[in-house]
Amino acid sequence: MYRTHTCGELRLSDKNKTVTLGGWVQRTRDKGKLIWIDLRDRYGMTQLVAEESVTDTETFAALKKIGREFVVQIQGEVIEREAKNANMATGDIEIKVQSVKILSESELPPFTIEEDSDGGEELRMKYRYLDLRRPNLQRNLILRHKMAQLVRNYLSDKGFLEVETPFLIKSTPEGARDFVVPSRMHEGKFYALPQSPQMFKQLLMVAGYDRYFQITKCFRDEDFRADRQPEFTQIDCEMAFVEQDDILNMFEGLTKHIFKTVKGIEFTEPFQRITYDESMERYGNDRPDLRFGMPITEITQLVKGKDFKVFDEAEYVGALCAETPVEYTRKQLDALTDFVKRPQIGSKGLVYAKYGTDGVIKSSVDKFYSPEDLKRWAEAVSAKPGDLILILSGTKKQTLSALSELRLEMGNQLGLRDKNKFAPLWVVDFPLFEQDAETGKLYAMHHPFTSPKKSELHLLDTNPAAVKADAYDIVLNGSEIGGGSVRIFDRNIQEKMFSLLGFTKEEAEIQFGFLMNAFKFGAPPHAGLAFGFDRWVTIFSGSDSIRDVMAFPKNNAGKDIMLDAPAELHNDQLAELSLAISAKSPKK
Amino acid sequence: MYRTHTCGELRLSDKNKTVTLGGWVQRTRDKGKLIWIDLRDRYGMTQLVAEESVTDTETFAALKKIGREFVVQIQGEVIEREAKNANMATGDIEIKVQSVKILSESELPPFTIEEDSDGGEELRMKYRYLDLRRPNLQRNLILRHKMAQLVRNYLSDKGFLEVETPFLIKSTPEGARDFVVPSRMHEGKFYALPQSPQMFKQLLMVAGYDRYFQITKCFRDEDFRADRQPEFTQIDCEMAFVEQDDILNMFEGLTKHIFKTVKGIEFTEPFQRITYDESMERYGNDRPDLRFGMPITEITQLVKGKDFKVFDEAEYVGALCAETPVEYTRKQLDALTDFVKRPQIGSKGLVYAKYGTDGVIKSSVDKFYSPEDLKRWAEAVSAKPGDLILILSGTKKQTLSALSELRLEMGNQLGLRDKNKFAPLWVVDFPLFEQDAETGKLYAMHHPFTSPKKSELHLLDTNPAAVKADAYDIVLNGSEIGGGSVRIFDRNIQEKMFSLLGFTKEEAEIQFGFLMNAFKFGAPPHAGLAFGFDRWVTIFSGSDSIRDVMAFPKNNAGKDIMLDAPAELHNDQLAELSLAISAKSPKK
Repeated sequence: MYRTHTCGELRLSDKNKTVTLGGWVQRTRDKGKLIWIDLRDRYGMTQLVAEESVTDTETFAALKKIGREFVVQIQGEVIEREAKNANMATGDIEIKVQSVKILSESELPPFTIEEDSDGGEELRMKYRYLDLRRPNLQRNLILRHKMAQLVRNYLSDKGFLEVETPFLIKSTPEGARDFVVPSRMHEGKFYALPQSPQMFKQLLMVAGYDRYFQITKCFRDEDFRADRQPEFTQIDCEMAFVEQDDILNMFEGLTKHIFKTVKGIEFTEPFQRITYDESMERYGNDRPDLRFGMPITEITQLVKGKDFKVFDEAEYVGALCAETPVEYTRKQLDALTDFVKRPQIGSKGLVYAKYGTDGVIKSSVDKFYSPEDLKRWAEAVSAKPGDLILILSGTKKQTLSALSELRLEMGNQLGLRDKNKFAPLWVVDFPLFEQDAETGKLYAMHHPFTSPKKSELHLLDTNPAAVKADAYDIVLNGSEIGGGSVRIFDRNIQEKMFSLLGFTKEEAEIQFGFLMNAFKFGAPPHAGLAFGFDRWVTIFSGSDSIRDVMAFPKNNAGKDIMLDAPAELHNDQLAELSLAISAKSPKK
Repeated sequence: MYRTHTCGELRLSDKNKTVTLGGWVQRTRDKGKLIWIDLRDRYGMTQLVAEESVTDTETFAALKKIGREFVVQIQGEVIEREAKNANMATGDIEIKVQSVKILSESELPPFTIEEDSDGGEELRMKYRYLDLRRPNLQRNLILRHKMAQLVRNYLSDKGFLEVETPFLIKSTPEGARDFVVPSRMHEGKFYALPQSPQMFKQLLMVAGYDRYFQITKCFRDEDFRADRQPEFTQIDCEMAFVEQDDILNMFEGLTKHIFKTVKGIEFTEPFQRITYDESMERYGNDRPDLRFGMPITEITQLVKGKDFKVFDEAEYVGALCAETPVEYTRKQLDALTDFVKRPQIGSKGLVYAKYGTDGVIKSSVDKFYSPEDLKRWAEAVSAKPGDLILILSGTKKQTLSALSELRLEMGNQLGLRDKNKFAPLWVVDFPLFEQDAETGKLYAMHHPFTSPKKSELHLLDTNPAAVKADAYDIVLNGSEIGGGSVRIFDRNIQEKMFSLLGFTKEEAEIQFGFLMNAFKFGAPPHAGLAFGFDRWVTIFSGSDSIRDVMAFPKNNAGKDIMLDAPAELHNDQLAELSLAISAKSPKK
C-alpha cells in the first residue's frame, strides 16, 4: 500500500499520528518559506503544510517543484490547524510533511479540474479521464453505483434472479435499427447487438425462472438526437404468474425504496395512476411533469359562436391557467407568442387573458368576447385574480402538443420545475397500436408482445386502432423513466398481433419463430418493465444530460472522441470478415 | 397474482388452507377414479390430488386432459398426505383440487425435463427454453446469480465502485481478434467490441476512482475450441495506490468469502503462493491442480550413464509417483503408454517402476538399471511400497507438459479430482514476455501494460526474455479462474515495453495514444485482476462445461441454434452500412 489513510478520513482525533497519503495535487500555495498543498483523492481533500525552517532541505525543494495534478506520496504528522475550515471534512487538521515522493508528474491539464470546468464539451470528452476527476462527475458515478447496488439488492431480496442474456444475437428489422456484427466464421452472416433483452426475458419466463432482472446495456443505431446514446443501460425486469397491478406494486416498491435510501424522500401514499387518455387531455403528453399543476382545460365549446374566426374554425381550443407572481408584461407575452409559433411547436398564435388583481379580466381578443364571456373562461380554468390564462387553438393533436410545451415553458419561467422536487406517477392504459395517419398502417405502440386488455380483445377484429393495452409507463418529472406491459402468452393472440402489424406468416416465423415455438410448450402469464437507468440517474443527480452519468459516453455524432472510435479497419481485418466497403452513392 | 403460494412453500402447518397454485405439470398419474399431478415451478414441486367421487365433474374432466408441461392454475385445500415423501420439501402435504384452469397447453416436449435429459446437446440448444427448465440448469443459474450478488456486495463494502465501460470501442489488433461493428453514420468505419475493459479501468484509475469493479461481458473472435464462448463474463477489478500483495490479499479475501457463503467451506490459512517457475517444474503447467500431490521430480542426472540410450540422450527426465490402491496391470500400463503417445501429448514412450508391496521394485527397463538404481529412483520420488513410478523423457518443455497431462490422468484414474474438493492457490512471478522460439519475437505474456518487477527493470535492455513480471493468477482445481498484474504507470517504461513488443511509435500512438496521453497528467500506481466468472461458476456448480452456467450459450461453432444466429442481413441493411460481402476466395 502506498498510503495509510485516504485524503478524506483524517480528523482531529488522529492528531500526532504519522501517516502516509497518496493523491493528486489540487493546488499549491507557495509563500516562499511556507508551502501549502491540497491533496485530493476520491474520498476527499487534505491540506499539507511544510515550513522551510523545519523541513528537510531535499523534501522542501521537491515540494516546491510540485504542480497541479501531480501524483505524490507524502509522509507526515497530523497536526491541528490554526485556521480551521468548517467546509472540509478534514478541515480541522493538516499534515506537516516529513517526506515526499513524486509518483507521477503532470503536464498542465487542458482545463481546470473543478466543479465548474473552463473546458468546452469536446475538449472534456477528448480528455475524459481528466473530466472524470471533477467532483460532480465523481459524485454522479458514485450515485450510479449506489443506485445499481440498491436495485440489485432490493430485487434479489424479492426473489428476482439476475440472468445474463446474450449480446451476439439475431437482427430483427422490427423497431429501431440494429447494430450488427459480421461473423468471420460464417461468411456473409451477421450477429446483431440487442436493442433490449425483451425476447430473452420472455423465454426465461417460459423456462420457469419466475422473476428475472438484469442491469444491462442495450444498443440502438438511431440518428442521434440530443441526449441519445447508441449504447444505454436498462434495468430490465420480468415476472411470471402476475397481472398488471402486481408489476405496478412491485416496481413502485422498488422506486420508493430507491427514493428513500438515496434521496431520503419517503412516499407514503401510492403513486398517482392516470390513464394515457387523461394524460394526453390534461397535459398534452404521456409523460406529464407533475411537479406543478397548470393542467390543460378544453374550452372549445365555450369560445365558439362569438365571430372570432380562429376559434370558430378550430377543432380544439385549450387553455392553461398560470399563477404568476407579478403581471406578465406585453414583452413577456410577445415572447410567449414567439415561443408557441416556433416551427417545432407550430401554433399560429397565442390568445391570453389576464385576470387583474382588481378582478378585471383583459384579453387579447376583447373585441370578440364580453367581460362575462371572459369570466366564464376564468371559471372554466379555475382562475383567480392575478392569474394568466393562455389559450391555443387548432387541430386537437397539434394544439395539445403545443399546450404541453407551453405548460412546461411556463413551469420553467415560474420556477416550478425544481430539481430537488420529485413527482413520480404511473401512466396506464396505453393504446395497443399507433396508426399512421396517411397509410392507416398499424405500429405497435410498445412492442408486438404487448397484451391487449382482456376486455378489449373483441375489438381486435373490428377496430384495432381503438384497442387499449395492459401497458404502463413510470414517469418522473416529465421524463419516462420506465415502461412495460403485460405480455401476450397465447400463441393465437400473438399470431393475430403479428398479422395486424402486417407481418406475413413467413416473416413472423423467421423473426419470432423461436418465441412462437416456445409458446407451444407451456407459457405462463407474464409481464415486465424496464427502467431507463441512465435517465433515472440523471434526474436523481440533478444533471442535465445522460452524458454526465456515464463514464465514457459518445458525443452526439456517436463518436468516442477520446478513443477516436469508430475508426477504419485494416484491410486484412476486412478481408477476414469477407467484407468490402461500398460507397453509398456511386463514386467512379 | 395467479397464485397465493409457490409450488415450494406449503407445509403441514398450512393444513386446511385454501390455496391457489400456478406452475408446470411435471407428471400425472391417472388411476381412473383418482388422479395425482406433480406441479412444478422454480421453487419446488407440490403434489395435487383429485378423486372422482368428490370432485366437480368438469374439473375432474379437465384434470384428465392435462399433459406434461401444461401450465395450470389450480385452487384447492392443503391436506395431509397419507404416504409422506421425505425427499420433497412439500412432501408432508398435497392439494385436494377444487378447480383448475389450463393457462397454456403444451405439446409433448422433444426431450425429458429431468435432471438427466434424454435430449442430445444440439436438440437441447435449439429448445434452450425447455433445457433451462431442467433442475440442474436452474440450480446453476441461481448459483450464478447468487455468486454475482455476493461479489458485488463484498466489493461494494470494500469501497469498490461498479463503473460501466463502453461496448462500442476501437479495434486494437493486439491480442485476439476483435468482433467489429460497422458504423452507419461514419461510412467505412467500425467500432469494436471490447476483449476486456483493460484500458478503461486503467483510465478510471488515472481519473481517481481508486477502486473499480465491473461484472461485464467481453468478446473474443477466436476459432472456437472446446468450451470457449465468443462472449464471456469477467469480474473485472482495479485498485490504485496498491502493490501486488494488496491485490492478492483483497481478492483472496473475496474468494474466501464466496467459498464460505456459497460452499460453506472456510479457508483459515492463506492460499498457497507458488512461483510460475516452481509450478512449471513441479506440475508441468501454470495452473496446477492441487487437489492431489503427485508432483513431478526431475531425475535426469540420476538415470544417465547406464547405457539406456533414451535417457542418456534426453535433455530432461522426470518422474511421478502414484499411490495406487492395487497394483497396475500390464494392460493398464499399456493404456497409459498409449495415452502419453497420443499426438496431443507427444511422448515417445513411458518408463515405469512398480514398487511391490514386498519391497521389490520392478521396472520396464530392468536390463539397464540394477535394483540399487531403482531404489535410488524410489528415494528421489519418495516412493513407498505399493507405489507406481512413471517416467517420461525428452526435451524439457515437451516432457514437463506431458508429465502434467499424465499427472492429471492419474489423478482422474485414482479418483483424486473430487468435484467437491477445492484447492485454490496463487501462481506468481510470471515472465513478462513469451518468446517465439523461431523468430525470437517477444509477446506480452499477460498484456502490454503489465509491469516488470522493479528489481528486474535493468534486464529489460540486456535480456528482456528473462524479466519476471508482477503478474499473478488465481488457480482452482487446475483451472485459472482469475489473473492480473501490477500495471506500468510510468510513460517511459510503457514506451519501452511497446518498443520491445515491436510496435513503432506511430502504431503505439494510434492504438494506445489516449492511454499514453492520460499518463502525462498524473497516473497513480495501480494494479488489478479479472476473474473468469463463467469458469468459476462452472467449477462451483460441478458442471463440465461453461455452457451449463450460461442461459443462452453459443455452440462450438459460435452459433446460437435457437435464434439461428448469425444470419444473413437484408440487402438494404448492408447498403445502409456501405458494406458488400466479398468472397474470401475469388469466385467468378
